Amino acid sequence: MAGPTVVALAGGVGGARLAEGLQAHLGSRLAVVVNTADDCDRHGLRVMPDHDTVLYTLAGVEQAALGWGIEGDTHAVMDQLGAYGEPTWFSLGDRDLALHIVRTAALRKGARPTEACLAAQRSLGLAARILPMTDEPVATAVATDDGWLEFQEYFVHRRQAPEVRALRFDGIEAARPTPEVAAALDEAAAIIVGPSNPLVSIGPILAVPGMREGIAAARARGVPVAAVSPIIGGRALKGPADRMLASLGHESSALGVARLYADIVDVFVLDAADAALAPEIEALGVRALVIDTVMGDDASRALLADEVLRLLNVVGAA
Amino acid sequence: MAGPTVVALAGGVGGARLAEGLQAHLGSRLAVVVNTADDCDRHGLRVMPDHDTVLYTLAGVEQAALGWGIEGDTHAVMDQLGAYGEPTWFSLGDRDLALHIVRTAALRKGARPTEACLAAQRSLGLAARILPMTDEPVATAVATDDGWLEFQEYFVHRRQAPEVRALRFDGIEAARPTPEVAAALDEAAAIIVGPSNPLVSIGPILAVPGMREGIAAARARGVPVAAVSPIIGGRALKGPADRMLASLGHESSALGVARLYADIVDVFVLDAADAALAPEIEALGVRALVIDTVMGDDASRALLADEVLRLLNVVGAA
Repeated sequence: MAGPTVVALAGGVGGARLAEGLQAHLGSRLAVVVNTADDCDRHGLRVMPDHDTVLYTLAGVEQAALGWGIEGDTHAVMDQLGAYGEPTWFSLGDRDLALHIVRTAALRKGARPTEACLAAQRSLGLAARILPMTDEPVATAVATDDGWLEFQEYFVHRRQAPEVRALRFDGIEAARPTPEVAAALDEAAAIIVGPSNPLVSIGPILAVPGMREGIAAARARGVPVAAVSPIIGGRALKGPADRMLASLGHESSALGVARLYADIVDVFVLDAADAALAPEIEALGVRALVIDTVMGDDASRALLADEVLRLLNVVGAA
Repeated sequence: MAGPTVVALAGGVGGARLAEGLQAHLGSRLAVVVNTADDCDRHGLRVMPDHDTVLYTLAGVEQAALGWGIEGDTHAVMDQLGAYGEPTWFSLGDRDLALHIVRTAALRKGARPTEACLAAQRSLGLAARILPMTDEPVATAVATDDGWLEFQEYFVHRRQAPEVRALRFDGIEAARPTPEVAAALDEAAAIIVGPSNPLVSIGPILAVPGMREGIAAARARGVPVAAVSPIIGGRALKGPADRMLASLGHESSALGVARLYADIVDVFVLDAADAALAPEIEALGVRALVIDTVMGDDASRALLADEVLRLLNVVGAA
């Protein structure tokens, strides 16, 4: 890899879109660290939703309307799994299942999740690398008025309807950043926290013991760290981040997110719609950058990425 | 189950067709004991080709032209597995893969192969039961001029082209008939060896330590045992049985097959085309029954089954 490495932290759709824009500029100089606390076993197969959303987005095959899976995928396997009495609410497409099958086989043979994921990325011809935050199992659980729920039970089966009263990342104490993540942070010329859910996507990444220290060490070397707000006008573009912020005692706004990141970022990128919040964000000791952040199409993704990279003085951006 | 139980021994297509005819007469009073020595792991999933051929045939969904898989199945997963560098010569359809996925998950949770297979049979609404010959792993290997080959490598990848010099059933010494197979033999009113490959389909079943003893004990109680020839006019209707008989030093004829079974059967059913062989078969101490054995359609399968059942004096056949 020539030139400086940029590390992006990402969950699902929002982070994936920014990563796509960054990949267009940086190619193999981009490393995306993805949340693994949503990962789960379905039908005996290991599913890694955030990794796979970023993978399919960077490969240009993502099902854009839904935010997960592969465009035009079929569901013959899922239909038949239903015939065998398997629950079908977590719907996996046929081509998507191939990844879960081949990855599960690799894991059973002793591969680390990172190794299995990198192999899939190479097969799909990705320029950037997508790095699971940790190779140890971590599982988000969500406290609701119906008790603790496994994350996908809350997110997919119950369609994020229950109010979230608390979060728990099971296994997080024993997790460590992978050697690949640690190396990427060591080599980083800039770090960008993507516009993903700050509580259940970025939250678990930052909760991996050693991750905040790795980011802090980079900052101590003068590496700039920016975050892009996932909240615009008080609302999440996708997903339950706004309601989750409110029910967990945070402000459901770009300011509320900036407060969560104030101790690790130098720059906070917020949408023009929230320009009025900039002074309060700067009062946190964080530089506020107001631009259009909505990434509707490839061009807007590349543009946002370009602005963030310029801001961070990442040289060599195409 | 009311009435006497009939136990059929079967490999793939030929045995599955006779089993379908028997099921039409016997319903839940039929138990099919299937060869498991062709079973293999593909892409980390447990595949049981003979069980599944019988399953799909008895469920009426089999891909008749090929003799394996599900009629009209698609191959999206397989295409994508190829994109991840997996070998694709052992092609598995999407709906077929659902069975391998759900069965593998059950096995990993500690189910016996028999339990996992019976669950799938119930899901597909089968009347008869299909019983793996053993729950212990057994794997056929084939000696060729290119050395020892795993069975599916010989059978599917090399399309049975190499001459077979020897056979080996790895794991057979440690295998035992399952409790379900032992119970079925104990309760049997008749036992029928299907028109499957005598060397690599019926051969492994009879090689399971305790299986011949179970059949002999039934005969000692007066239970009739019949075998149906898979060879007609010196040729196998499907598969390499004829060439394999010859290359392993047997006669490639109904007589050659009858010799292999002479010590365990009372009756040998051969096709009218081979009527001239009947005296030599009877000279083995086996009663020869000459009828039309080619099972082209459902009606002919039911007719053959009916004739065999009448011969064995199985009362209560519908």
